[in-house]
Amino acid sequence: MRIIVDAFGGDNAPLEIIKGSLDAVKEYGVDITLVGKEDVIRKVCKEQGINPDTFEILNADDVITNDDNGSDVVKAKSQSSMAVGLKYLHDGGGDAFVSAGSSGAICVGATLIVKRIKGISRPGFAAVIPGAVSKFMLLDCGANLQCRPEMLRQFAVMGSVYMNKVMGIDNPRVGIANVGTEEHKGTELQQETYALLKNSSLNFIGYVEGRDIPADKCDVVVCDGFTGNMILKTYEGVAIALMKKFKGIFTKNLKNKLAASMVLKDVKVLKKDFDYGETGGAPILGVQKPVFKAHGDSDARSFKNAIGQTKQYLESGVIEIVTEKLKEIKAGEEND
Amino acid sequence: MRIIVDAFGGDNAPLEIIKGSLDAVKEYGVDITLVGKEDVIRKVCKEQGINPDTFEILNADDVITNDDNGSDVVKAKSQSSMAVGLKYLHDGGGDAFVSAGSSGAICVGATLIVKRIKGISRPGFAAVIPGAVSKFMLLDCGANLQCRPEMLRQFAVMGSVYMNKVMGIDNPRVGIANVGTEEHKGTELQQETYALLKNSSLNFIGYVEGRDIPADKCDVVVCDGFTGNMILKTYEGVAIALMKKFKGIFTKNLKNKLAASMVLKDVKVLKKDFDYGETGGAPILGVQKPVFKAHGDSDARSFKNAIGQTKQYLESGVIEIVTEKLKEIKAGEEND
Repeated sequence: MRIIVDAFGGDNAPLEIIKGSLDAVKEYGVDITLVGKEDVIRKVCKEQGINPDTFEILNADDVITNDDNGSDVVKAKSQSSMAVGLKYLHDGGGDAFVSAGSSGAICVGATLIVKRIKGISRPGFAAVIPGAVSKFMLLDCGANLQCRPEMLRQFAVMGSVYMNKVMGIDNPRVGIANVGTEEHKGTELQQETYALLKNSSLNFIGYVEGRDIPADKCDVVVCDGFTGNMILKTYEGVAIALMKKFKGIFTKNLKNKLAASMVLKDVKVLKKDFDYGETGGAPILGVQKPVFKAHGDSDARSFKNAIGQTKQYLESGVIEIVTEKLKEIKAGEEND
Repeated sequence: MRIIVDAFGGDNAPLEIIKGSLDAVKEYGVDITLVGKEDVIRKVCKEQGINPDTFEILNADDVITNDDNGSDVVKAKSQSSMAVGLKYLHDGGGDAFVSAGSSGAICVGATLIVKRIKGISRPGFAAVIPGAVSKFMLLDCGANLQCRPEMLRQFAVMGSVYMNKVMGIDNPRVGIANVGTEEHKGTELQQETYALLKNSSLNFIGYVEGRDIPADKCDVVVCDGFTGNMILKTYEGVAIALMKKFKGIFTKNLKNKLAASMVLKDVKVLKKDFDYGETGGAPILGVQKPVFKAHGDSDARSFKNAIGQTKQYLESGVIEIVTEKLKEIKAGEEND
């Protein structure tokens, strides 16, 4: 199994990406191709005492940044590490691709270079998020700001298969993010998606309000990419703000520091449980080969986790199952 | 100053509403009219040892619930405590109205019974939320699921005046909720609103991502009501989930309980700081008289705070200033 890694994606590239890749080779026994400026990669390896022959190195001179438009990945930045890596995946150079670079670019690149699964309208950016009890998937988180009901149905199918096969959840509960739980709530998008999912073979539980999203109401939350992005980032923002507040309390004075030392172990577990970094990132669902977005601020640990998730995604057969399910839906509609 | 109170709105009505109203009379020196089933109000007063003559009581036999459609407030439920109270406000029976009842109904009722300020397209549901550093306003939080840019501009004007006059913030910073901070990000709604606010006299700071919303990036966040509702409720949900997790740690064993006792005072302050209930609720901005939505789960303390906020709203002159600003905008456009 060979994972293609964008060595120049993310805030801490290439150093943390290379370190995380090395850890992944050791921990998961995968082969890794690092894509990016070869001379810089070799220099970093040398400085870190890493044997560069651990990896295959594929040169790419350019880098795509968050300031570029997503579509630049197939235009001005077609020689970027991300574009070259995705092309290498498409051409069979490796089995899956991971990048901590621009979310917009990776979604466009996955769609246009790796190509969609037959029948998928638009691939989705699918974040796996720690909830109060267990992890849940939120999609789309920003690949498609405006969506049609049919797209949300496809997100529901893909999210359900992923949570089952990769995250091991039996018969995942699927919900639609909405402003209320009664059937008449929301806009046409929510209402028409409701009708589609109600008549599906999914374990559909109806609408989910924002307040219940962290509260283990369902395993897959579907919504348009604008809403998903706002939920995802508000989620992160509130968790960060509250954790900082607690840190302030725990470091306020000697007495509080003593109290902190007594619960330190438990708080660390909580922090890890609620740490979005632990889940590694988000798969791009709906393309023909596994493409995985690691967090932009990935350090070596987080990036290694992303590679681990990508390996599971690849081994799980998600793409094959989704392809089959879409055929079934299409056949069902033709029989209607 | 007379505040009209919907005695039958919210999860804890009428008991907590009546108790909170009594506390408000004592603390703020306001006159209060309780609207609802008179016999029940008198019975509760008797049971609680409250002199019913503390209040004016206005009978209304019906109650609007969260299961009713918002528009029922002017249809099937026109004899509900909310509808009767809003009518009493419109007719000059009191100076402002507070209810912990259905958000949808109060928005419709405020618009159709109390009527809009001249020039306002649609009133907004404007929540005041505790952030990491200070409180900020998020609007619209659900009155208008789909919005036009002009509506968001009006929300920005109203939110800015409210945060200045009621919350005492000098030159409030206004931002648009969006998936990124670069000018080309988002949908037409965000981009066109950006163009309108850029050319306004507001202290416009551009787009605000979900992650930065709790982080004191701005004092007023404008968005459509669908997005605002998802942000608001996700915000609440994550805060509740994390607080519960900490409670679990603090009650886990004797050692942790001891640690908890050492930081209890500080955690209580934090809980209060982050408690949405402390802010009392959300004004409905854009109608001719102050209408205030208290939290659905208001207890006496939270409802008393809501009355306090309503008093400030009334005294601040927000409505008069907004009316003037709208005239200026209109005059400016006619000069263009």
